[in-house]
Amino acid sequence: MAEAEERFEEVYDELRDELEELCHEKRYNDLRKRFLDMNPADIAWLFDDMPEDHLPVMFRLLSKEVAADVFINLESDSQEMLIKGFSNSELEAILDEMFLDDTIDVIEEMPANVVKRILKYSDPETRSEINKILQYPEDSAGSLMTTEFIRLRRTTTVAGAFDVIRQKGDDSETINVSYVTDEERHLIGYVTIRTLVLEKDTSALIGDIMEPNVISAMTTDDKESVVQRMSKYDFDTMPVVDAENRLVGIITFDDAIDVIEEEATEDIEKMAAITPSDRPYLRTAVFDIWKSRIPWLMILMLSSTFTGMIISSFEGALASCVVLTAFIPMLMGTGGNCSNQTSATVIRGLSLQEIEFRDIFKVIWKEAKVGLLAGAALAAVSFIKVLLFDGMLLGNPEVTPMVSAVISFTLICTVFCSKIVGAFMPLFAKKVGADPAVMASPFITTVVDALSLVIYFGFATVLLGI
Amino acid sequence: MAEAEERFEEVYDELRDELEELCHEKRYNDLRKRFLDMNPADIAWLFDDMPEDHLPVMFRLLSKEVAADVFINLESDSQEMLIKGFSNSELEAILDEMFLDDTIDVIEEMPANVVKRILKYSDPETRSEINKILQYPEDSAGSLMTTEFIRLRRTTTVAGAFDVIRQKGDDSETINVSYVTDEERHLIGYVTIRTLVLEKDTSALIGDIMEPNVISAMTTDDKESVVQRMSKYDFDTMPVVDAENRLVGIITFDDAIDVIEEEATEDIEKMAAITPSDRPYLRTAVFDIWKSRIPWLMILMLSSTFTGMIISSFEGALASCVVLTAFIPMLMGTGGNCSNQTSATVIRGLSLQEIEFRDIFKVIWKEAKVGLLAGAALAAVSFIKVLLFDGMLLGNPEVTPMVSAVISFTLICTVFCSKIVGAFMPLFAKKVGADPAVMASPFITTVVDALSLVIYFGFATVLLGI
Repeated sequence: MAEAEERFEEVYDELRDELEELCHEKRYNDLRKRFLDMNPADIAWLFDDMPEDHLPVMFRLLSKEVAADVFINLESDSQEMLIKGFSNSELEAILDEMFLDDTIDVIEEMPANVVKRILKYSDPETRSEINKILQYPEDSAGSLMTTEFIRLRRTTTVAGAFDVIRQKGDDSETINVSYVTDEERHLIGYVTIRTLVLEKDTSALIGDIMEPNVISAMTTDDKESVVQRMSKYDFDTMPVVDAENRLVGIITFDDAIDVIEEEATEDIEKMAAITPSDRPYLRTAVFDIWKSRIPWLMILMLSSTFTGMIISSFEGALASCVVLTAFIPMLMGTGGNCSNQTSATVIRGLSLQEIEFRDIFKVIWKEAKVGLLAGAALAAVSFIKVLLFDGMLLGNPEVTPMVSAVISFTLICTVFCSKIVGAFMPLFAKKVGADPAVMASPFITTVVDALSLVIYFGFATVLLGI
Repeated sequence: MAEAEERFEEVYDELRDELEELCHEKRYNDLRKRFLDMNPADIAWLFDDMPEDHLPVMFRLLSKEVAADVFINLESDSQEMLIKGFSNSELEAILDEMFLDDTIDVIEEMPANVVKRILKYSDPETRSEINKILQYPEDSAGSLMTTEFIRLRRTTTVAGAFDVIRQKGDDSETINVSYVTDEERHLIGYVTIRTLVLEKDTSALIGDIMEPNVISAMTTDDKESVVQRMSKYDFDTMPVVDAENRLVGIITFDDAIDVIEEEATEDIEKMAAITPSDRPYLRTAVFDIWKSRIPWLMILMLSSTFTGMIISSFEGALASCVVLTAFIPMLMGTGGNCSNQTSATVIRGLSLQEIEFRDIFKVIWKEAKVGLLAGAALAAVSFIKVLLFDGMLLGNPEVTPMVSAVISFTLICTVFCSKIVGAFMPLFAKKVGADPAVMASPFITTVVDALSLVIYFGFATVLLGI
């Protein structure tokens, strides 16, 4: 482990113990001072690690501004516990300090009665904004956006723009970009704070200095694809418009980063046959972990009934040449590894929009070539290894050159087919609107397992005459 | 597939065909006009998709500022081709427009002779900065940073700060945050553009309004962990200091997003037993793809010699109860799926710094409980399924309740052990400084495969007396 990390863990442990002790000894003034020079995200991290009963006391020692920042960084179970303990005025104060998109994030994790209470103590304007955003589908750009941003008119001057920013800046998620709209709130351009600051003529009109080619997302767009676009264009903010191109919100880079990390985690989980969940592993109950894993284990176990049936139907062949059994796991494993490599590459490429469905023939053609090369290399090495190691070194008289040839031929065909199946399945899933990562793993495994056995027994029957 | 995406693909194809036609018909003025309202990232995307011989002509139609932006968004093979065709003055002009960190990105992908040429035609100051950054290790924060940022003094006023920003802003990667340093360039605080703009008193001193608690990275820090910290703190910019806390550069959110995506892709590739590469799949040669995949296929194939040996050594037992063979793939597969689920969860948790090595006992304890629950569920379903389906429905007289019991007992033990192995291995790898994702897959597979067979034959020997 990196030295820096070990050092960090030590410091962290010491700090947590110190805070716990201070709290235990009711030295609240010292505690308050300790919090002063700490980053809210760090405070939240420590809080999540504390005994639950210390949390409300400690939280109340934070200044109002810091309290809101700490709150949004807490895990949702800590948030829920705190909200339940808040007085109405405390809740109101916290909500007042929070940006809209953070409030939405909190709400999305809370049970219905807590959500009701949050809505009740938000100011009326915020409440109506929250309700609007909550109506967007879960994975849409609309659900990710905030409606607190700087809006400018084409006819405003640079000096006027600074006035608007000074007036609205405190309640805006970012002032780095301001958006320009017309009378009907249609998005017609944007202007960065850099442009405003570097503009020498403060009477210049926004309409003259704005960038009119503005790339935007629709409220109904899938949030993953919007975030991919932000990454492609290096945007720190993406405007979100409705079907009539009216500006309704913005998505900021910090939410984009969260989505990128979540989506990658989800892809990894799905590829590993896990139902994705939002909660960090260490804070998820054993039963919930079990629930996210058992369905696919069950499906995959039952689907391997097919492979069992294939083996059973060749029982006679296996009985007459028992050594064949020993190579079944290797052949099925290699097929699985090959299809896995390809499907992981394709699924990730689809997520990053580096691969599209229309590339399907290019991808399959490429994989066919890689499959032949890889199959040939594995077959060659296997032929020699089986003969020398399993045959001569272990002295198994059953391992003849012909048995070794059967294994090598099987490898070539299995690797080739596995690569094609691994390439085709995720792209096909994408085309029919299914999730490539979810559909890939069980189907590919079942198909590839069955294929490799059929190929194996096929070659065995023909070449060994069993 | 989402409708929006299909629509997008159509528009994209039409646009590419149109541009190609314009270029073919030498209608350069029309082409130039088409480029005017396009985003540089989109132009680059289209360029990468064009026949190579059109590229230099089209590229020269772009205005100077856009050309640099398009250039940095091109794939490295297109960049290389263009650079080789540039006149010295063209190269100088492009380099002059590029930000330092983009130049570094380009350089890192170029062959030595092209790098030499780039360095030769960079201005002397940039050249020395490039050389400094190139000396940092590949995965360090130093290699990711740019040295173009706004530096302020504690004694500067807000008005003075705006003067500095106006003067240096054009050459700074971002003006959203300015960093405050003392006489020895030690980092002592930062001030955001928001603070500067919202500050009503333009004669206020930076030292009084700056945020003195500044979180920074060291040049030698691992870039992945720095980027994780940026994500945790929602920073759009992270200052980078040397061992003496002297400010030497900044990392911006766009580079952070790239690192996050790259690292997730790398983890996915490693988990799928692929040697990671930077190049997009569709632009990678077949032979290079083969090279990135064959080592692990070879290692995994050879490591399954162990499982083969175990099966061979129980050949007698298998011959006396042939039906046992049919369940080998299912048992090994279930073991593999279980360890896979756990190792993927732990590896991702380690990457996101949600799990640390010190959590090892918590993780193993949790997985032990999940393993028991999952094993019990799978065993119960399997017992009934084997008896009813394989025994009665397929009418196999060999499938006795005792055989079914052997399979179920094996499942419980295998699932339990697989979960523990899947949890332990990545954490152990991390501890000894190895890459959890790389080490996990082959070792875990080999261990779990061997374990499940030994457990299976163990129960078979004891319960069936073979």
